[in-house]
Amino acid sequence: MQHIDLNCDMGESFGAWTMGNDEALMQYISSANIACGFHAGDASIMRKTATLAMQKGVAIGAHPGFADLQGFGRRNMALNAQEVYDICVYQIGAMLNVSKAIGAHLHHVKPHGALYNMAAKDAAMAQAIAQATKDSQEDLILYGLSGSLLISEAEKIGLRTASEVFADRTYQADGSLTPRTQPNAMIEDTHKAVAQVIRMVKEQTVVSTEGKIVPIKADTICIHGDGPHAVAFAEALNEKLKAEGLIIRAV
Amino acid sequence: MQHIDLNCDMGESFGAWTMGNDEALMQYISSANIACGFHAGDASIMRKTATLAMQKGVAIGAHPGFADLQGFGRRNMALNAQEVYDICVYQIGAMLNVSKAIGAHLHHVKPHGALYNMAAKDAAMAQAIAQATKDSQEDLILYGLSGSLLISEAEKIGLRTASEVFADRTYQADGSLTPRTQPNAMIEDTHKAVAQVIRMVKEQTVVSTEGKIVPIKADTICIHGDGPHAVAFAEALNEKLKAEGLIIRAV
Amino acid sequence: MQHIDLNCDMGESFGAWTMGNDEALMQYISSANIACGFHAGDASIMRKTATLAMQKGVAIGAHPGFADLQGFGRRNMALNAQEVYDICVYQIGAMLNVSKAIGAHLHHVKPHGALYNMAAKDAAMAQAIAQATKDSQEDLILYGLSGSLLISEAEKIGLRTASEVFADRTYQADGSLTPRTQPNAMIEDTHKAVAQVIRMVKEQTVVSTEGKIVPIKADTICIHGDGPHAVAFAEALNEKLKAEGLIIRAV
Amino acid sequence: MQHIDLNCDMGESFGAWTMGNDEALMQYISSANIACGFHAGDASIMRKTATLAMQKGVAIGAHPGFADLQGFGRRNMALNAQEVYDICVYQIGAMLNVSKAIGAHLHHVKPHGALYNMAAKDAAMAQAIAQATKDSQEDLILYGLSGSLLISEAEKIGLRTASEVFADRTYQADGSLTPRTQPNAMIEDTHKAVAQVIRMVKEQTVVSTEGKIVPIKADTICIHGDGPHAVAFAEALNEKLKAEGLIIRAV
Repeated sequence: MQHIDLNCDMGESFGAWTMGNDEALMQYISSANIACGFHAGDASIMRKTATLAMQKGVAIGAHPGFADLQGFGRRNMALNAQEVYDICVYQIGAMLNVSKAIGAHLHHVKPHGALYNMAAKDAAMAQAIAQATKDSQEDLILYGLSGSLLISEAEKIGLRTASEVFADRTYQADGSLTPRTQPNAMIEDTHKAVAQVIRMVKEQTVVSTEGKIVPIKADTICIHGDGPHAVAFAEALNEKLKAEGLIIRAV
Repeated sequence: MQHIDLNCDMGESFGAWTMGNDEALMQYISSANIACGFHAGDASIMRKTATLAMQKGVAIGAHPGFADLQGFGRRNMALNAQEVYDICVYQIGAMLNVSKAIGAHLHHVKPHGALYNMAAKDAAMAQAIAQATKDSQEDLILYGLSGSLLISEAEKIGLRTASEVFADRTYQADGSLTPRTQPNAMIEDTHKAVAQVIRMVKEQTVVSTEGKIVPIKADTICIHGDGPHAVAFAEALNEKLKAEGLIIRAV
Repeated sequence: MQHIDLNCDMGESFGAWTMGNDEALMQYISSANIACGFHAGDASIMRKTATLAMQKGVAIGAHPGFADLQGFGRRNMALNAQEVYDICVYQIGAMLNVSKAIGAHLHHVKPHGALYNMAAKDAAMAQAIAQATKDSQEDLILYGLSGSLLISEAEKIGLRTASEVFADRTYQADGSLTPRTQPNAMIEDTHKAVAQVIRMVKEQTVVSTEGKIVPIKADTICIHGDGPHAVAFAEALNEKLKAEGLIIRAV
Repeated sequence: MQHIDLNCDMGESFGAWTMGNDEALMQYISSANIACGFHAGDASIMRKTATLAMQKGVAIGAHPGFADLQGFGRRNMALNAQEVYDICVYQIGAMLNVSKAIGAHLHHVKPHGALYNMAAKDAAMAQAIAQATKDSQEDLILYGLSGSLLISEAEKIGLRTASEVFADRTYQADGSLTPRTQPNAMIEDTHKAVAQVIRMVKEQTVVSTEGKIVPIKADTICIHGDGPHAVAFAEALNEKLKAEGLIIRAV
């Protein structure tokens, strides 16, 4: 039987502020990428979120980002490779210890927002993240954009990777995501999103916006946790994937 | 032969700002308490400082503090015990991983500033720090004020401790430090400071401001790294202790 | 005809995080205390919130707090009077300029959370806040806890003040708020809360938890904006006060 | 008689950390650009630095930057124009009020580091800074790189500007600064630096690295305050300019 991983960014609340609905979503996913305090999350929220993940049998991942709370780590910042390495070692370390303190194992690392996007196209930044992940714990799996430099650079140093695809984003003929600036970038219809996921998982292909069938590596599906329909979509996707005979579990 | 530990707060620079002279001081001490990014230090400075300590054979410690950069962690903050536990797990975790990434071992934990002072007198806070230390790595040694609740609470849960005394502070008849608000709180004279340290190490006593000989547990001596004469004092103390036949090494 | 001010803490979102429902609440109040970026709020949210207040004819106030984002400014911090003065001048200045840039006038200052509570009982802190307010703009009105040192110290230096009472908190025989640690601290019932407010406004008295009628100065009523029933309560209170013939307007 | 302005970034200490030597430098300059708490400086340091400037008769300027303490505001951040406008209004407002509270007038605005550099080449960012400056106080003078978009965009909206040149940087044939990545970017020799300044001030030209005489608008000279020879250089430059019959005063 085939299996697939559903991952979601989690623990992105901060102090008195709440983001998303981690409690409701956790039951539908298999991997939680937990914010590490730089772009979101704080030490207490990290503990609560990791505990919730452990209780639900969801794999715990570190979700490091830029130190830009106000911008939620979504604004590009010109850090050099050494600085990127350092902030990743720091944040992964914090998450490793939060996990250890509750008796859980850290399973993966997925960079957040601008750090994720920049590393997809910048080899030096990709190497820095990959090396920081490897130096933190040999068996950590690095989650990155399917087909990106983050995946290829991680594989060069022998790190296990998970190629990530998106349920609610369309793809172009070259296998890249349609930029959000274009009107057809998002898939609003749940049925279409589910169908795209099933194809990506079962056939490792995606139908581009031009109608072309494009090969794509799909180890893990990213679900967004912060929209108004996030929980309903996660539930629907989870059910449909199971109905298709797929097993939902972490990479 | 007797031995004694000289510890100093290190890595308290931040970004473009420099604090103290870690490079010059490191050769005279045996334990470095490295700031973990909350009151001082950042991910890059932590790496540089831990590397310097490793090169000089100095034991690496985590030096967690309150998240108060502007106040340098010296201002009391009303965190509850759970929050204290969480920020300690987070900061110790970051330091553990920075150490691991450079191939070094984390040796001890010493809370900083207001966190150190509050925990000396607040059992719940002391327990939180001790538990966070234990949950991070079983063999970590907790450095705390000699005779304080931080030491006694740590021992209750089976943690190894190091009772800290001060070279440049005077003591009262009950074994407590003379408050800094009093004129005779500080020992300015290097000879007197060295003499006090030698007595504390060799005889485990101190002469109080009233002239009384008071028993005191002295496992580690705190040296301040940020005054204008810090390096000269550290060098002098290091030499005098060796001349007395004492071996300077980490607890 | 009598009039009364309804004030509410506003603009306490931060970056991507939302707090409360400012848009819905703004129509029912007469004074908005806008967070200034230290405990909540950021430069963009301040502009948006001040603009919303101006559009609804609501008086704009600065709501300075401790620099403790994670603790939402609710945790006591041991700042000295000079530091309190400085952070107030800074935050009030930012809010003054945000108001000026949109063509609005800054009307009042109300300290937030732990700063508000500490200043109620600490004369030096109260003086620092009052002086910072006066030095920022002579005609600013300082909102503070009715009967507190913040009010009396502000009056000593000739500042206009507004004595604040709470709709949803009970009072003790000495006119002080029942501590939140006691079971009867909160008034959950909307009718009782409204009745208390009407009495406080019309008669300047309150019935204590012991049943005693206690004189109280009530210039402005604090409404909490962050509970699940906040909007409904604000609407109900607004309507009932009008039905009683009271005019709701800023001090 | 001709006059020239010597400006220097000031108040770039933070909390317990010191940067530069403001006290020694202040006597040699005519304009102080005071950090506003985002990239450096804090509310207390702003007050102290503005007070020092006022005592020495030095014009006080706001020196807003990106909210990147660890990177000292030197790392590019992808803020949109609205966000840039908002953080400038906020920081200028804080500085305006700090000045008002000590009885001083705010004279100018000079953006810092990455914000300064990005705005030199990005019209939308330049407009945002210029508009924020104008909306804060009509008579504020905007200091920007000579020949940059920041100057031209500011002039478009009727703002007074000061074209800034550098004493210790070489220029290229097109009037732009030699990039720091090139070996001849810096002028290490004090005599050469002074000679370049005198030429720029008296003749409004500069000799490029290729030996070409290039016209340049020089209203204000930037002096760096953080090098080891900063004070000696400032003193020398100040003396030489006076010896040339120039009056050193703010724009």
